[in-house]
Amino acid sequence: MNYPGLKKTYHKYTNFANRGMDLESLINQANEYYIQNDIALIYKKPTPIGITKTNYNTKTIQGYFKEQSTLDYNGIYKGLYIDFDAKETKNKTSFPLSNLHEHQYKHIKNVIRHGGISFLIIYINDEVYLLDGNLLIEFTTNNDRKSIPYEFIKNNAIKIELKVSPVLDYIKALDKLIKERNL
Amino acid sequence: MNYPGLKKTYHKYTNFANRGMDLESLINQANEYYIQNDIALIYKKPTPIGITKTNYNTKTIQGYFKEQSTLDYNGIYKGLYIDFDAKETKNKTSFPLSNLHEHQYKHIKNVIRHGGISFLIIYINDEVYLLDGNLLIEFTTNNDRKSIPYEFIKNNAIKIELKVSPVLDYIKALDKLIKERNL
Repeated sequence: MNYPGLKKTYHKYTNFANRGMDLESLINQANEYYIQNDIALIYKKPTPIGITKTNYNTKTIQGYFKEQSTLDYNGIYKGLYIDFDAKETKNKTSFPLSNLHEHQYKHIKNVIRHGGISFLIIYINDEVYLLDGNLLIEFTTNNDRKSIPYEFIKNNAIKIELKVSPVLDYIKALDKLIKERNL
Repeated sequence: MNYPGLKKTYHKYTNFANRGMDLESLINQANEYYIQNDIALIYKKPTPIGITKTNYNTKTIQGYFKEQSTLDYNGIYKGLYIDFDAKETKNKTSFPLSNLHEHQYKHIKNVIRHGGISFLIIYINDEVYLLDGNLLIEFTTNNDRKSIPYEFIKNNAIKIELKVSPVLDYIKALDKLIKERNL
């Protein structure tokens, strides 16, 4: 997801891709819609590039992909700080926690402690869920499992219903989360 | 400031640079300090790179510098959404508004309207100021000037006093702004 130039392999194995869409594009589309309609200001952070060579005349560079030290998306909604990432799995029975890097997990915890809202948008079994960071922390604290069962997600995360425009209108699920947590 | 590979020219004309420092590094240093000490979570967004060529085997790329569509820094402090940029000028009598791009000005307005805090850190006359976005908007609304006089900044912005570690401890100025605005 972080490598715009490497989409080809990624496109092969998602159902979204079979429909000519991908999770990242749908979230970007939703974010653009929210900005255009003055609903929220949420942006994807640029992919970090380690620069190995700079041509000062043409302002062109050579480099390599680096890992984002935070999550991919952040911004503001209803005065609240929002910080999240998008994840997908081909696995039908569970979401492997190996999809989440240690520093991402730590970042989610930090954001919540500082009073922000942090979550994952998870694409699994051709469904999309918003998993509150608090639930994620609760699950990993109470379980030694290396994956979150699909059933847990289905029963506890907030389902994002797809619509025409924007397709992945995740702000309704976010509204539910804000309401549930009395924020 | 946005071109890590192009620092050489930039280093030439700042006083910070003469001391072996630059504004961006000092802000990054402060942000790291705030993260380490659990004071705030504020990060510089990666420099956006337009990718022209990808080597799939080595994961290396070729590309060019793109413009950030937002401001360079954002995050959370005391539960508040923070969004700002750093600017410097060699000009001693005023801060030229040409330093601020139209889309940056619009972004500052948007952030404030959505309930966040947005400001500029301005390095002028070997002093550093935190200029509240509200003041910036007020000034540009009431003036046709193409620059903000140094006197206006001196009298209205919040001065950031330099210290040993972190050198540019801007959070104290931010605290003043939060207090002034009753946030």
